[in-house]
Amino acid sequence: MIIRVDISDGRIQKEQMPEGQLLGGRGLISYLLTRDCDPKVHPLSRKSHFILAAGLLAGTKAPNSARLSAGGKSPLTGGIKEANSGGTFAYQMGRLGIRAIQITGRADSLSILRIDRKGVTIENGSEFSNLDNYTLFGKLRKRYGDKIGIVASGLAGEMRLANSTIAVSDMDGRPSRHAARGGLGAVMASKGVKAIVIDDSEGIAPQPVNSEGFKSAVKAAVEAILAKPTCQNLSKLGTPMWVDTDQARGSMPTFNYRAGAYEHFQKISGITVAELAKNRGGRMGHACMPSCVVRCSHTYHGPDGRHLTSALEYETIAMLGANLGIDDLDGIARMDRRCDELGIDTIETGAAIGILSDVGLFRFGDLEAAEGYLEEIAQGTPLGRIIGNGVHFTAQAFGIDRVPAVKRQAIPAHSARAVKGWGVTYATSPQGADHSAGPVGVEPLSSEGHAERSRLAQIQMAALDSVGMCWFTFIYSMPGLIVPLINNFYGTTWTEKEYLDWGRQVLRQEIAFNRAAGISVEGDCLPEWLREEPLPPKNAVFDVPQKDIQLVFQDL
Amino acid sequence: MIIRVDISDGRIQKEQMPEGQLLGGRGLISYLLTRDCDPKVHPLSRKSHFILAAGLLAGTKAPNSARLSAGGKSPLTGGIKEANSGGTFAYQMGRLGIRAIQITGRADSLSILRIDRKGVTIENGSEFSNLDNYTLFGKLRKRYGDKIGIVASGLAGEMRLANSTIAVSDMDGRPSRHAARGGLGAVMASKGVKAIVIDDSEGIAPQPVNSEGFKSAVKAAVEAILAKPTCQNLSKLGTPMWVDTDQARGSMPTFNYRAGAYEHFQKISGITVAELAKNRGGRMGHACMPSCVVRCSHTYHGPDGRHLTSALEYETIAMLGANLGIDDLDGIARMDRRCDELGIDTIETGAAIGILSDVGLFRFGDLEAAEGYLEEIAQGTPLGRIIGNGVHFTAQAFGIDRVPAVKRQAIPAHSARAVKGWGVTYATSPQGADHSAGPVGVEPLSSEGHAERSRLAQIQMAALDSVGMCWFTFIYSMPGLIVPLINNFYGTTWTEKEYLDWGRQVLRQEIAFNRAAGISVEGDCLPEWLREEPLPPKNAVFDVPQKDIQLVFQDL
Repeated sequence: MIIRVDISDGRIQKEQMPEGQLLGGRGLISYLLTRDCDPKVHPLSRKSHFILAAGLLAGTKAPNSARLSAGGKSPLTGGIKEANSGGTFAYQMGRLGIRAIQITGRADSLSILRIDRKGVTIENGSEFSNLDNYTLFGKLRKRYGDKIGIVASGLAGEMRLANSTIAVSDMDGRPSRHAARGGLGAVMASKGVKAIVIDDSEGIAPQPVNSEGFKSAVKAAVEAILAKPTCQNLSKLGTPMWVDTDQARGSMPTFNYRAGAYEHFQKISGITVAELAKNRGGRMGHACMPSCVVRCSHTYHGPDGRHLTSALEYETIAMLGANLGIDDLDGIARMDRRCDELGIDTIETGAAIGILSDVGLFRFGDLEAAEGYLEEIAQGTPLGRIIGNGVHFTAQAFGIDRVPAVKRQAIPAHSARAVKGWGVTYATSPQGADHSAGPVGVEPLSSEGHAERSRLAQIQMAALDSVGMCWFTFIYSMPGLIVPLINNFYGTTWTEKEYLDWGRQVLRQEIAFNRAAGISVEGDCLPEWLREEPLPPKNAVFDVPQKDIQLVFQDL
Repeated sequence: MIIRVDISDGRIQKEQMPEGQLLGGRGLISYLLTRDCDPKVHPLSRKSHFILAAGLLAGTKAPNSARLSAGGKSPLTGGIKEANSGGTFAYQMGRLGIRAIQITGRADSLSILRIDRKGVTIENGSEFSNLDNYTLFGKLRKRYGDKIGIVASGLAGEMRLANSTIAVSDMDGRPSRHAARGGLGAVMASKGVKAIVIDDSEGIAPQPVNSEGFKSAVKAAVEAILAKPTCQNLSKLGTPMWVDTDQARGSMPTFNYRAGAYEHFQKISGITVAELAKNRGGRMGHACMPSCVVRCSHTYHGPDGRHLTSALEYETIAMLGANLGIDDLDGIARMDRRCDELGIDTIETGAAIGILSDVGLFRFGDLEAAEGYLEEIAQGTPLGRIIGNGVHFTAQAFGIDRVPAVKRQAIPAHSARAVKGWGVTYATSPQGADHSAGPVGVEPLSSEGHAERSRLAQIQMAALDSVGMCWFTFIYSMPGLIVPLINNFYGTTWTEKEYLDWGRQVLRQEIAFNRAAGISVEGDCLPEWLREEPLPPKNAVFDVPQKDIQLVFQDL
């Protein structure tokens, strides 16, 4: 079921899922936007659409199957956007039989959408204006009960910043999970919706067509996931384990992307995070959503032994740490918390503060200044609005011509120069530079073969994001484990090829949306300086020929 | 001759004009950028190019033939940019046999380029940093003599603002003429060049191949121009005469483009300007460049009887006056002066301040606030940097979704809704919304026939801008008067068709550059709200079908 809300007049419709096709998550977003949203609308106009979509298997026992996709036209890239997150919300949608919530129009006053078994109501939310996400989530639980799942547009969203996230409640009820990239917080907020709360207490788990087969498929998938050394490490060290990996291959953005390794990396590594957790009471091996068997999340406690932030992730550590020359892990954790409170993406934020070093507005290692910039955003000052609109915007404001972005979205923390396959994905993804759009870690310094690899990885990820599964299961490249889950649940007879074609179709729709929005194939490239500036210590430049890059989606 | 400067190493080359073709002004810019500039470079990078080009007839006695074209990749639109201006500079180039000055690279310290009969020298210009244009021009004349022509990148250019102009010295040596649109001041400044001074005292007027024929062609053109009632009015009232015209047809942007007429229009009209000139000592009927016979320029004196600004133009009066609800002509004149000092485009500035009314940051009629915003730009505060990057940028900073811009460039002061042919030009010009790119004033409220009209007007203007003639001669639609000037001067045998094909070729190159820069045909549209919001008093919406608009350049 799709819940369609025209928030301008409060009209709510329940629409059945389209017949004859399976749609969920990212694929459902591209389907609905293609059907309903003029690609030329202003992302923040009444006519734009904001969508939350659960994956095909949300609410089931399929491992790591409760990712929540948020979508709309991005105020950051100007193209289609799907950003997904863990948290409880999609699982709860699944238990209420809701595959998507689609909002258009604009409310006259700030609203809260409340969803439960009985239906959807729109309630006045004026009292929740201008609250940071932690405070907001506390107040919402006070009003609606402790069991609710929450999605919120955040303080930055209320300010309509292009770097604003959708905050999603985690298993502890905290706003620590974010559909962070592309500014969807502003899209949701532009509808006048501060938060959506979901109460699934009268919900029921969706039932598979073939219970036994599904159970076996779940078992096979779980076993395969748990056998993966990477997944084992993730539960011990969390995603900060990649500090060591990226450090070793010289692909961790450091000093405004001027180096790929950081001499103080041990102070911010996964081992350090795990040690601190042990000493201070933080918890490693934490699931960020129901159904998770990987448990890469963790809670980070401050020097006082109290919870400071949840899931201090690799991307955050690299972008707000190494990239800013900051090795104070508590300081990075404070910034992560503040970003979660404000509802801003840590990647985009780290990139935006980092480039200020090019015009003398930031000195590497100056934690106080970096935290000060976050407060500028919190206060909505003109400077805060500049930084809060992302790295491309900040670059234009200050006339900086070395811009670490593709399609106006910041390049994340696996360097394009030292992991060139990933660079091809950054260049070509319809989502803009996005490390989760199609990871290609193999043969990192070779300039060859990455077009094919990126294409396949992007197809696999588009499919996985539509199933609603987490990529840290590392089975996105193993459709043999995923297709049985779908077939047994839905009674379908998909082949692996059909599954990948289904992912391919998502990319096709996304690219078509972008083309109609004015983003041409010429946008599929990395900024020139990545081809010119060697990145120490590997001293690699990005040298995948542009003609190879243009092959990625040829005849998709 | 083309003077090519790689300012990084100070290398200066003199290149002959390409054989077998006539190139000048806008056409020479599109030729050189197509040949030498990767459309994907960052506009402010070392690899970008900044070009000044004189028209085919610069330095001759052909009427109004000394427009100066400035060009490069625009930091405002991201596409190709040619902006032209009056002033003495192009005429002086013509007398030195220089058709273009092309600069690439970046100087380590701020430089002045000095050009005279002996050649080109690069001189240290550090002492001229951070000066407003009036002060700068005074100091440059002190150093280089009173006879020099000056082109300067301005204070806004030094700040790399996307709304920064190229200031050009007028007949009085003042920085009152500007190649204003598209942010070329920042491009020039990004080369490290503060100003270019030209001394033509040992120059000679270029000689026609056929003197007698040229003399007759000049005579015929001058007579035709002087016989035009519009040109006669322009010499009496200046371009502010259009206040009455646009007021009457409901096409003068008023109150942030929410109306097309302004009840206080008489306080800011051409008649008022002329009366004040009479009473205070300002001069109407002023030529802005050698060879001008139209004389639409004027000097505006303040209440104290002293010079305040030169050529208070219609676009300025509409955008900083009516569009901001300001009817204080002296106040508008002060803002015009300040914009000239800073080197910012008055159209873009008026649009950017105007939209602030949508978020409570500007109250219509608040002259003090408007002047305050100009000081924010002058001081380079974050807020100033936002506004100084233009209307599209300002809209994103503050989350405003009603954006009066096409290809990120502000829509000028002949409303697209009440003069729909012009709207088609705004939608389609490769230059972004630009009133001089192809004026179409006929059948203003009809939705039909404008695709053909806009196409022809844009071809005519592309040709005229390459000849270097001013469109206020109003002979752009009369190639029969222009072609004889070219043929007699160069000994060519162009037909009128060949002349127009020459204009067509310029547009083709510009569009191709834009496509390669990532600006697709989907960018050829007006913002949606112009199709929805009726513009009083005519209550017209823009209703030219999008499919007609897409015909404009089909099979160009």
